[in-house]
Amino acid sequence: MSKSALVILAQGAEEMETVITVDMLRRGGVEVTMAGLDGSAPVLCSRQVTLVPDKSLADALAEKPQYDAVILPGGLEGSDRLSKSEVVGTLLKEHEKSGKIVAAICAAPTAFVAHGIGQGKRVTSYPTTKDKVAGGPGDYKYVEGERVVTDGNVVTSRVSTG
Amino acid sequence: MSKSALVILAQGAEEMETVITVDMLRRGGVEVTMAGLDGSAPVLCSRQVTLVPDKSLADALAEKPQYDAVILPGGLEGSDRLSKSEVVGTLLKEHEKSGKIVAAICAAPTAFVAHGIGQGKRVTSYPTTKDKVAGGPGDYKYVEGERVVTDGNVVTSRVSTG
Repeated sequence: MSKSALVILAQGAEEMETVITVDMLRRGGVEVTMAGLDGSAPVLCSRQVTLVPDKSLADALAEKPQYDAVILPGGLEGSDRLSKSEVVGTLLKEHEKSGKIVAAICAAPTAFVAHGIGQGKRVTSYPTTKDKVAGGPGDYKYVEGERVVTDGNVVTSRVSTG
Repeated sequence: MSKSALVILAQGAEEMETVITVDMLRRGGVEVTMAGLDGSAPVLCSRQVTLVPDKSLADALAEKPQYDAVILPGGLEGSDRLSKSEVVGTLLKEHEKSGKIVAAICAAPTAFVAHGIGQGKRVTSYPTTKDKVAGGPGDYKYVEGERVVTDGNVVTSRVSTG
């Protein structure tokens, strides 16, 4: 059976980080669900590209409560919305606990901090968000010299465009 | 005044090639219009990501008949649709004649061949479409060793994922 991944799309997400992630995983044979944080309506991203989610996050979780990976694209506004979502917090915690991959790109590791994900682990993030991650609660081991940092089932990356 | 670019979005286009192009140009200060070939409705792309065009191609051309650059994203199905569109043929010819940039990514140079754009110029394309371009009419000088080939106002590129 092919692996499954849930990519959560919030208003103000980085469209490239969303689309490249979905596209590359689909090319690799992963069954990807691009789920809209606030429903199934089209989502305006950070550079004014509008993406249509496959379904709402609520529907995605109703159909399948756990995925092999949950991935958060970056974008400052999108990451802020992911940080404030209780649903996202709960599903990240459940996935982390089950040993599933939890991944965050660019500014999205700030949502990990907000929800207490990956505490004590090696992580990275978009450079301007370093203080929020390294200085936040959770005893993170902040890494600056790597584009992608993997510590167990926690994957974080720095930038899409650097 | 900022430069303007028209990115034409057809069903079956490569979503990454569309989104990365739009995003990077907007980051660079270019005023980008992502225009739907067949209207303003959401467009299903090659890896099942659905993008919402900014407006229809008809509206984009009604508002502004010429852009500083016209860019065709790849994708086999999308390129085929661009190849068959008379509107696309006419606008490419007008832009080429006016010295504006005409650009095609991946499989989309086949639409240049279909519409007689860039004849006699150095071009490249997605490797599997080489025969259609190098062997087609137009006396193209096919280039294999470069990712992006620029000859005057004609820009072609090979792959987004290679």
